[in-house]
Amino acid sequence: MNFEELSPELAVQTDTKIVLFVIDGLGGLPRNGRTELETAAVPNLDRLAARSSCGLTDPVLMGVTPGSGPAHLALFGYDPLRHRLGRGILEALGSDVKVREGDLVARGNFATLKDGLIADRRAGRIPTSECERICAKVNAARPGISDAEITLFAGKEHRFVARFRAPGLSDALTDADPQKDGKPRVPASALDEASEKAASVVNAFLDEILGILKDEPAANAALLRGFSVQPTIPTMADLFKLRPAAIANYPMYKGLARLIGMHVYKIGPEPADLFAALEAHWKDHDFFYIHFKKTDAAGEDGDFEAKVRAIEEADRFLPRIEALKPDVLVVTADHSTPALMRGHSFHPNPFLLAAPTALPDDVAAFSERACAKGILGRFPSLRAMPLILGHAGKLKKYGA
Amino acid sequence: MNFEELSPELAVQTDTKIVLFVIDGLGGLPRNGRTELETAAVPNLDRLAARSSCGLTDPVLMGVTPGSGPAHLALFGYDPLRHRLGRGILEALGSDVKVREGDLVARGNFATLKDGLIADRRAGRIPTSECERICAKVNAARPGISDAEITLFAGKEHRFVARFRAPGLSDALTDADPQKDGKPRVPASALDEASEKAASVVNAFLDEILGILKDEPAANAALLRGFSVQPTIPTMADLFKLRPAAIANYPMYKGLARLIGMHVYKIGPEPADLFAALEAHWKDHDFFYIHFKKTDAAGEDGDFEAKVRAIEEADRFLPRIEALKPDVLVVTADHSTPALMRGHSFHPNPFLLAAPTALPDDVAAFSERACAKGILGRFPSLRAMPLILGHAGKLKKYGA
Repeated sequence: MNFEELSPELAVQTDTKIVLFVIDGLGGLPRNGRTELETAAVPNLDRLAARSSCGLTDPVLMGVTPGSGPAHLALFGYDPLRHRLGRGILEALGSDVKVREGDLVARGNFATLKDGLIADRRAGRIPTSECERICAKVNAARPGISDAEITLFAGKEHRFVARFRAPGLSDALTDADPQKDGKPRVPASALDEASEKAASVVNAFLDEILGILKDEPAANAALLRGFSVQPTIPTMADLFKLRPAAIANYPMYKGLARLIGMHVYKIGPEPADLFAALEAHWKDHDFFYIHFKKTDAAGEDGDFEAKVRAIEEADRFLPRIEALKPDVLVVTADHSTPALMRGHSFHPNPFLLAAPTALPDDVAAFSERACAKGILGRFPSLRAMPLILGHAGKLKKYGA
Repeated sequence: MNFEELSPELAVQTDTKIVLFVIDGLGGLPRNGRTELETAAVPNLDRLAARSSCGLTDPVLMGVTPGSGPAHLALFGYDPLRHRLGRGILEALGSDVKVREGDLVARGNFATLKDGLIADRRAGRIPTSECERICAKVNAARPGISDAEITLFAGKEHRFVARFRAPGLSDALTDADPQKDGKPRVPASALDEASEKAASVVNAFLDEILGILKDEPAANAALLRGFSVQPTIPTMADLFKLRPAAIANYPMYKGLARLIGMHVYKIGPEPADLFAALEAHWKDHDFFYIHFKKTDAAGEDGDFEAKVRAIEEADRFLPRIEALKPDVLVVTADHSTPALMRGHSFHPNPFLLAAPTALPDDVAAFSERACAKGILGRFPSLRAMPLILGHAGKLKKYGA
């Protein structure tokens, strides 16, 4: 029996408030002997660590680099090896695309096809307004293969979400995207028998769209990747009796939060907007997920200094959270994004939990190596939610 | 495959002797910066820690507060999420009530019913002799609904154990106890179809007893809670090839020990009686579970100083265990009971294992935070038993 099965029996609704502050991609690797977090001046995090229980978390398994989906799911108490989410469904949910059970969605790019090769996978990064015009054009042409209703939703620049609505669509499909410029188009391949209908619908659509877009100078083809159907997943209210809110300003994180029943606020684009929203909605929820993106973006760019600055910026916002006096405050990350690796990594996440019920250890700095000596030890991210709920007094005693 | 499945294949009987000294509710939270254990002077435990492998254990899952049943089961090597014991069965076993497979038991209180409300859930704490008289009166009246044979067993003051003997009784029942004074009686409700017969037998009995007790001034009604049937559970001899003894003086711990096949000695009420019994029966067993209760009781009372004194008392008995030269000596707790929380908590347990085969770490004090730095790390209590058996040379090599 895992906690997902146990928690509906143990969880109780209380007035205590929890803040889970996720500094995306926080963990790193040393340059000149110090990681990004060890280089950054983070007086507030250090002070908080000194009164917290600290540890390190592994998002999925030691050594396994997670995508943002599984990394966040684990942190929210959902086994990432049990609940598998396609990137497409996250993108769709985060873009306010209405998805219902059975819909197949995918992330799309408009691309330039020339002499049988994909000359530019991003169609020269057409403006967003162009993308909107072209999506409308495709939708007006009512592409529909067999019984499928197909709709495109414009994103930024060359990006869109494609939704295929028909009975019997499964998502075990390879990407219909050569991933590199200068290669021919590739069809989606079914990885199991149940997905064969989906593959034929998708591939017929990708052929049909060539006709619809034949007069476009740049965006004359489409690529699709991350096929996924809406999964069945319990909400955080079902599992943990929480009234959770997501304070995030990037689509994917909002999409994931919505999928598990968080109330997702519309937030401005600046980091400060996150904390204004937290303050504005403090009375309305008992669980707040705050997502700070800049650290991960700097890590992905391989920009060590920018990541240090982003960490320092996150640190400066900490007193605004503390001023609200949450009963449990957790600061951690979904996954590591070392600037030296220019991408997500498998390294563990620093984790601190501050609460009147927490036993402070002697970790007096917030960093990868300091947290390794914390009282919580090294544990799977999946174990964070019971720990948080327990410290918040939201779990009944197990057994007599 | 878990260790419960593996151990019958690996365990071997040997002459080595194991002592598991459980200081109930040992872990705590700081007052003025120090926990109860950090405040207590425990020279013997500190000395032992210095030559031990140390760590911290989580009884069920990080963040989950366990009852005494699951916390002990885990320590004895039984997965507490797999073996679920009702409080009633533990109470019955610990009270020497004979229970056989299929019996349904519950903990009972005599109560005072007045004007249709439970005026006193404890019937004015009637003397134990009164309780014995009233139980005999009820049993003499031979209450028996349909084919059920119902017997009450007197406990201390207003407390008793009720045993329902009939075919087809299941234990998915809510408590027939309003939990608070001034409320009306509540019937037991069946939580599944299989328990409907049990609900009707129990509720008919609770009505019938009102007639039997109508002339009693205080104890004129009964409340029942913790319904449970005798579970099927392997013994420690089956699993680990041990000849185990329980040295405990509280009913529940004795009951649990008996359930998993320990020999349960009758022990006097004083802590010193535990160690006299250990010495007296040293030749007869290869595994001794010693249960020290005072620490938990002080924690439950919220009495920090009393808990400190109880810990110091436990420490003073340690040389008597050491004098017997056990091959493996483990000192730990079932769960934490911080005086500041006045109850069980989810915090981890300090754990030390002293043995000629143990690798001492540099933990030189026995406390929550010192053990956090031990070589055993932080691990589930369920993992303690294989660790103990291994250090005692009671496990064969796994595989070739």
